[in-house]
Amino acid sequence: MKDFIIIGNKAVNAGKISLNDLPGSAGRMDVLCRCVTSALFISFGMRRDINVWLILKGGPGPEKIVRFSGETMRSLNPDERSAGSLIQKALLVEASEQEKQSTPGVFVRYATFAQLLEEMKEVRPIFYLKEDGADLLKTAENDETAALLENGVYILGDNQGVFEGDEKIIEEAGAKKLSVGPQSLLSSHCITLILNALDRMSQNAAETDE
Amino acid sequence: MKDFIIIGNKAVNAGKISLNDLPGSAGRMDVLCRCVTSALFISFGMRRDINVWLILKGGPGPEKIVRFSGETMRSLNPDERSAGSLIQKALLVEASEQEKQSTPGVFVRYATFAQLLEEMKEVRPIFYLKEDGADLLKTAENDETAALLENGVYILGDNQGVFEGDEKIIEEAGAKKLSVGPQSLLSSHCITLILNALDRMSQNAAETDE
Repeated sequence: MKDFIIIGNKAVNAGKISLNDLPGSAGRMDVLCRCVTSALFISFGMRRDINVWLILKGGPGPEKIVRFSGETMRSLNPDERSAGSLIQKALLVEASEQEKQSTPGVFVRYATFAQLLEEMKEVRPIFYLKEDGADLLKTAENDETAALLENGVYILGDNQGVFEGDEKIIEEAGAKKLSVGPQSLLSSHCITLILNALDRMSQNAAETDE
Repeated sequence: MKDFIIIGNKAVNAGKISLNDLPGSAGRMDVLCRCVTSALFISFGMRRDINVWLILKGGPGPEKIVRFSGETMRSLNPDERSAGSLIQKALLVEASEQEKQSTPGVFVRYATFAQLLEEMKEVRPIFYLKEDGADLLKTAENDETAALLENGVYILGDNQGVFEGDEKIIEEAGAKKLSVGPQSLLSSHCITLILNALDRMSQNAAETDE
């Protein structure tokens, strides 16, 4: 199981978002939609062992988390508008602190990023995508760290990155910093690179077993 | 200079496309829009040494090519709708066989994929992204083939892949097949992986020079 958490600093968390204005009035929801596509889609199907957690911090309501579960996902296409439409539906559900399914494979609840990380940090290795982190490919080459990657929770900022308060929470959760390469890239592109490294790891492991 | 050519088998090439229906009535234009974003965007800017050539084969008119030039690009954001809007504008220009600029950095002309490849094949190394190709990372590690990648023209299919006729043209142009890893991925994700390999190559070269 792999999990991607994306912090949407301005992402709107209540009311009806406009699918025609995901970058504007929906608070750079386009960034989150691209992350969903990068995390879940391969050419002829879906990655079923992945959860994507979208942290919607942009108001007007209290912080919400929308989860896309690869395992049970239906009615999702790779275009931004498709993911946006499922987020729109999730935001129209009357949310509580218990996760509710809004459409097949999409879940919503009132929760903060700190709460989510609290639930995960004891049981999973946490990685924080950051330019000054350890190189992803070198980490994947080392047997010991590679095993952690395979079961990793990966935290990414949006176009604004991760603000100081959240960075402190990440640090306190004992996250390891990870970098995808020499350029600072879009969050969705980082996810593609992580998954490719994991695909290559699985292939190498399978070849070694033969 | 790097060039990406994406073959849009069903991509509409005349009339006003709907930005609200890029995957449907515009003929999977969303695939091409994501490729533009993957090829041109880094976190805080644009890759200026890249051209993206979109081959619009889906009618109702004759085949057109829309080129996004990183060098002179303006008014492009990373969301699909933004690239879609510039393609929409390009399709409303009265096209000829001479390239015309529709908006800053976007150009349109009547031309076929075969013509474009004819122009490029004598002067540039051509790569064709295909599952059974040579591994990208291994190719990047070999000094001789790495030099070719740096100056490469990369051809990708859309969600339908590349049909037999076009594959024959690619073969006759002497293209080398290249694979990005063990999974078959979306075209836009392949572009991200190619550019990451090139970024890593540049970094290694810079470190070796020091």
